[in-house]
Amino acid sequence: MSLLNRTINEIGDLHAGAMEQARKRLDSLIKPPGSLGVLEEMAVRLAGITGNPLPDVQEKVIIVMAGDHGVVAEGVSVAPQEITAQMLPAFLTGKAGIGVLSRHAGARLVVVDVGVAGTVDCPGVRQRKVRPGTGNIAAGPAMSVEEAVEALEVGIETALAEIDRGAALLATGDMGIGNTTPSSALLAAFSGCSAAEAAGRGTLVNDQVMELKVRAIERAIEINRPDPGNPLEVLAKVGGLEIAGLAGVILGAAAKRVPVLIDGFITTAAALVAYKLQPRAGEFMIASHLSGEQGHRLLLEQLDLAPVMHLKMRLGEGTGAALTMHLVEAAARLVREMASFDEAGVSGLEEDKIMV
Amino acid sequence: MSLLNRTINEIGDLHAGAMEQARKRLDSLIKPPGSLGVLEEMAVRLAGITGNPLPDVQEKVIIVMAGDHGVVAEGVSVAPQEITAQMLPAFLTGKAGIGVLSRHAGARLVVVDVGVAGTVDCPGVRQRKVRPGTGNIAAGPAMSVEEAVEALEVGIETALAEIDRGAALLATGDMGIGNTTPSSALLAAFSGCSAAEAAGRGTLVNDQVMELKVRAIERAIEINRPDPGNPLEVLAKVGGLEIAGLAGVILGAAAKRVPVLIDGFITTAAALVAYKLQPRAGEFMIASHLSGEQGHRLLLEQLDLAPVMHLKMRLGEGTGAALTMHLVEAAARLVREMASFDEAGVSGLEEDKIMV
Repeated sequence: MSLLNRTINEIGDLHAGAMEQARKRLDSLIKPPGSLGVLEEMAVRLAGITGNPLPDVQEKVIIVMAGDHGVVAEGVSVAPQEITAQMLPAFLTGKAGIGVLSRHAGARLVVVDVGVAGTVDCPGVRQRKVRPGTGNIAAGPAMSVEEAVEALEVGIETALAEIDRGAALLATGDMGIGNTTPSSALLAAFSGCSAAEAAGRGTLVNDQVMELKVRAIERAIEINRPDPGNPLEVLAKVGGLEIAGLAGVILGAAAKRVPVLIDGFITTAAALVAYKLQPRAGEFMIASHLSGEQGHRLLLEQLDLAPVMHLKMRLGEGTGAALTMHLVEAAARLVREMASFDEAGVSGLEEDKIMV
Repeated sequence: MSLLNRTINEIGDLHAGAMEQARKRLDSLIKPPGSLGVLEEMAVRLAGITGNPLPDVQEKVIIVMAGDHGVVAEGVSVAPQEITAQMLPAFLTGKAGIGVLSRHAGARLVVVDVGVAGTVDCPGVRQRKVRPGTGNIAAGPAMSVEEAVEALEVGIETALAEIDRGAALLATGDMGIGNTTPSSALLAAFSGCSAAEAAGRGTLVNDQVMELKVRAIERAIEINRPDPGNPLEVLAKVGGLEIAGLAGVILGAAAKRVPVLIDGFITTAAALVAYKLQPRAGEFMIASHLSGEQGHRLLLEQLDLAPVMHLKMRLGEGTGAALTMHLVEAAARLVREMASFDEAGVSGLEEDKIMV
């Protein structure tokens, strides 16, 4: 069996017992029941994912997958394609957004070239290029199904290697000029929404570029006719190499019961691919922020994920996920480190006055 | 002139030059313009507050003010009053919510007894008790105007002392059983909204307690007839000692041009008092989360503040503000540490394609 199929089969359910224990512990702590809101839900989820009622997620790794997109030939982007390759060194020297925020999060940053068009001249970037950029989805498939599987497996292998090295919390990030267009095409293909609903302004493109973008997405669907019931085919026809890699990271994390943070529009498109390949993977994902990109809300709805931060960010790179690591860690620390009413010698609440 | 009046007069405007410099720097960095969303707005605000286009907010202090409330005699709370005094040691030993989250934020935690009813048996808590709890606002004023000024000045002095010791970012937190009721009364008094609109479920009280709470707020307004044009009178009549102390912390921070994070419902009521005493103080406040308490949204609207996290928390203690410190620090670090397109040798964007 292929690594992809093994991984998909390995993904299990949340651990109900650990969740119940975490819930009980949370209700015993010196605070009104439920008053930590989403952080309590997050702590319970972490317990279910890891099987540990007192989860520890201190070892944090952010995985950024980079790839290029043939559809830039349609004029859908404001940035020249060479920026994809140029940005990666700035990630690792800490001078780009994710460089600063991974340092701020106390997370290790792993950058993988799974499909950059040009040569990436930076020894820190892991070389796993499946092909130098996708084909133009407005004119044909992005890649073959074999290439899509290969890129997925690059992601799985990267996640597994980091988990082997001790990663207890993963975050996903993307780099790829033009990659909002295939992400919108994936949303349209899976959800059936129109190209206009799925398309967003990306790097705040003007109306003229926006029109080209909507038309490119429409053509991608018309020409490729992706079958929403066949997620591998959808990914190969209208997806991207870094999107496939990120879907692989998510599947690998879920298989190994490690929580994985979803970032913005592109990584959520990857999460939807992972979910379509294995719906159980959804339980292992944690949403971070609601991006400024129009289609992000629709993607999150497909996944039934609720973002916790509303920062109007539209940068990608894993920046929103990196910021959310602090919250996930907080959730884990609260259930681990707070005392119960008994332990702290604090009087109990009058339970007959509490809403049930 | 009193410390309170001196402080109010000292509060100035944001530094327009530093904001302009920060904006220019942000637009030069290797990211699409504006793509860091709220973090960019925050970085610009920090520049305006501090007068430094590359602000540094690493030295972080959370100030929790504690006080008790005579209105608990009306049966408005599910928690016995002695919990106020019992919780404070757990803050400082790190076993309560804010204990864990201040440690997680890398912030120093300062706890001040400005009006706890019982004796606080904990050497780490600063003793600045103005009186042992307020009067019952449903039957008369919470305190005298002199006591309100005294409590405000405790807050100012606490903020100034911490800023002298190097604090570059302050957060506010509250502890006081029953304190959602005076906070709701302050909201009703200043905004003119009804008691039912201003009241929330606090510690998730049931319908019976909720009815008592709404009636207590109604009576507090009827009996005290606070004049919304006289914020000191409103505070003395229907406020609280820790709320006054927190308003003082905010005024002190604003006077010294130090950004101050607002937490949930109670600290936002304190922020509204500070704003009514000196509208310019509003520019120095940063909202953190949207609390689960019903009236919080109305209070934030009065202040024209937008929360960045949606966590359904309803604990107080400064827990939401503590979590947001990570974001404020991220904003400062991004403008300080990211490279420009020129510095990083990354190609520029095609500006004629960007929306203006």
